[in-house]
Amino acid sequence: MKAEIITIGDEILIGQIVDTNSAWMAEQLNLNGIEVYQVTSVHDDHKHIMQALADAESRVDLVLITGGLGPTKDDITKKCLCEYFECSMHSDEQTLQAVIDRFAKRNIPVNQLNRDQALVPDACTVLPNKNGTAPGMWFEKKDTIFVSMPGVPYEMMGIMEEEVLPRLRKTGKVKSIYHQTALVYGIGESTLAEILEAWENSLPPFIKLAYLPNQLMVRLRLSAYGTNMEQLKQTVEQKMQELVQIVPDNIFGYNDDTMSVITGKLVQKTGSMIAVAESCTGGNIAHLYTEIPGSSNYFRGGVVAYSNEVKMAILGVKEETLKAHGAVSKETALEMVAGVKKALGAEYGIATTGIAGPDGGSDEKPVGTVWIAVSGKKDTLVECYRFYHNRARNIERASQTALNMLRQLLVFELK
Amino acid sequence: MKAEIITIGDEILIGQIVDTNSAWMAEQLNLNGIEVYQVTSVHDDHKHIMQALADAESRVDLVLITGGLGPTKDDITKKCLCEYFECSMHSDEQTLQAVIDRFAKRNIPVNQLNRDQALVPDACTVLPNKNGTAPGMWFEKKDTIFVSMPGVPYEMMGIMEEEVLPRLRKTGKVKSIYHQTALVYGIGESTLAEILEAWENSLPPFIKLAYLPNQLMVRLRLSAYGTNMEQLKQTVEQKMQELVQIVPDNIFGYNDDTMSVITGKLVQKTGSMIAVAESCTGGNIAHLYTEIPGSSNYFRGGVVAYSNEVKMAILGVKEETLKAHGAVSKETALEMVAGVKKALGAEYGIATTGIAGPDGGSDEKPVGTVWIAVSGKKDTLVECYRFYHNRARNIERASQTALNMLRQLLVFELK
Repeated sequence: MKAEIITIGDEILIGQIVDTNSAWMAEQLNLNGIEVYQVTSVHDDHKHIMQALADAESRVDLVLITGGLGPTKDDITKKCLCEYFECSMHSDEQTLQAVIDRFAKRNIPVNQLNRDQALVPDACTVLPNKNGTAPGMWFEKKDTIFVSMPGVPYEMMGIMEEEVLPRLRKTGKVKSIYHQTALVYGIGESTLAEILEAWENSLPPFIKLAYLPNQLMVRLRLSAYGTNMEQLKQTVEQKMQELVQIVPDNIFGYNDDTMSVITGKLVQKTGSMIAVAESCTGGNIAHLYTEIPGSSNYFRGGVVAYSNEVKMAILGVKEETLKAHGAVSKETALEMVAGVKKALGAEYGIATTGIAGPDGGSDEKPVGTVWIAVSGKKDTLVECYRFYHNRARNIERASQTALNMLRQLLVFELK
Repeated sequence: MKAEIITIGDEILIGQIVDTNSAWMAEQLNLNGIEVYQVTSVHDDHKHIMQALADAESRVDLVLITGGLGPTKDDITKKCLCEYFECSMHSDEQTLQAVIDRFAKRNIPVNQLNRDQALVPDACTVLPNKNGTAPGMWFEKKDTIFVSMPGVPYEMMGIMEEEVLPRLRKTGKVKSIYHQTALVYGIGESTLAEILEAWENSLPPFIKLAYLPNQLMVRLRLSAYGTNMEQLKQTVEQKMQELVQIVPDNIFGYNDDTMSVITGKLVQKTGSMIAVAESCTGGNIAHLYTEIPGSSNYFRGGVVAYSNEVKMAILGVKEETLKAHGAVSKETALEMVAGVKKALGAEYGIATTGIAGPDGGSDEKPVGTVWIAVSGKKDTLVECYRFYHNRARNIERASQTALNMLRQLLVFELK
């Protein structure tokens, strides 16, 4: 089964929002063995929507549509769907009742625009929306299934999980796909491609290899397509094992693993705790840990020491150190990491201090200069990095680099 | 001038990455008066890419293509472009020299795959890439301009800013567009639509209104299209003023304003500092402040008190308070906010303590329960919220709500 995702709404086309819905839907479809052939974003414009529906019908077996279902004037998806499926609208009783109940619970009066959310094209099967007022709608036309859903992410997700995916699995038309991704640190894309050339050429034709580089690492994804899931899985796992033998020291994780999850698991194994002292990363490393469910088992807390006063008062950095070497220095980073371990009672510590930019740089310490210290039960590592000139990237890169330093220290200590 | 963005690469279609490039490009094009008609994401597949190029040529005057320019086997964009523009490839001397210099600087040997990055179709004008090895390529075919760029975000951004946008402005084909967005807090989309109906109907036909709701607010965007920029600007500004008079208490900002920027500016005005004590938001509020350039002028720092030990040791929360009321309580939130103001020496404080989930809830305090306290020079506010069951959303929502409470306190104190 091949799918196309159509997002409707001007907000993506003027760049006001990033299209996270399509990525999520694509992932879910792939996990369910449905290949996404194309993603198309179009305006809230009648002619354009009609054209996009017809084009998609000619290309694929499944069309997932999001957006344009709000109660306001600029949302015209339902009208277009009625025209496309040559039908009228009626008020769906169950949906109307759900809207009324929803507003009653919150003591808000129901207006006509809210009631109109229950209007649905006669040709559709209504898919209940537990998280909002606009229901999902399921249509079939010849051999193509069309599903329209609201653009609000958690409403769309609820309808996908509870209605759309179970129904699609029941069609029996889904092909098997199996993906595995290895996360490779410390080798660039082209060097890696040279090293892996012979192995890559040995892959069977039903397995595809993709290089997905970002600033910090290269993700190597193996995708196998076929009908026999067991065989796909076995072949991919075997090829992954071969890969590990070719670059044993550079693969640090798989699939959705992150540096924070990996280091967290390693620390938890030892029954210890992590504390972080952040100057230039400003709370981002703490956030990367605390967004993980259950992280309180190994993450004690952190101090965002955004000023020298906090570095001294809470972390015990000495005034002489700051005067002699500056806040962005090896000596300050070392005192910060020792200080946060002590103040928060943790066995493992991370400290960052640097110039995130765009201002604050000097010839000696340009924007992007970051000192990072990590410290464990026995060892302490400290390094100076020179990142680039973009504040957001410097924060992200310094955070990931600090986590990787902790990972290296942990791997070494646990050997 | 109408544009289409084509992204090439399997990673978007399997949901492994979110397409942030298109949002950024769309925003830049709109700011330069170029309307984005469609965004299309296609596979690294020869036939599919050729079809997408032809379709786009039939629809628009400008086609921006990203992705598929890496040195590895799965990247086939250049071959497709040669075929589409009926030409061969040659090695571009300047690009080759740039690749060689780049590797020399880092002491990495240049391999053949790297050298091949300098191969470009004969039909293109080469656009230098300061941040990577794959150059941008500019083609013209009849009345349509095609530009191909790498998919790595900062490489694409550099080529757009330094090469593509200046060249587009020189074509003289760009239409004027003027956008203004008001940020509305505390009224739902459909209630707002009712209140604004008469005003909305009074808008001239060249102005479009869009409702862009998210979990926290509704963004109301006015877009004016035409030829006379001064007139567009004047009419939009006037309509915005009318809007402010209709919902004076609910508009808290404009365009890209965020709660952290707004509260930061207000605090800076008073010459004071902010400190944050975060339990369930885990460093996210500190991150929202520290990602703003210059935030050290008003942000002192924070404590991520992810365990009771840290709440007591650093913030001075009393053991009896934790025992009698629990960590997630009004009393703890109040002691945290008082404690962080004192410990970090700040006039304004924010404290959060709650159950982000998915575990840790009880009947009395279900997942999503969050106590937030904010405190200023004279007043302290404390509130209990019940959010939902998704960890990431609870963290984001609690953070934004806390910032909004501080905003309300500041507005009140500064009256």
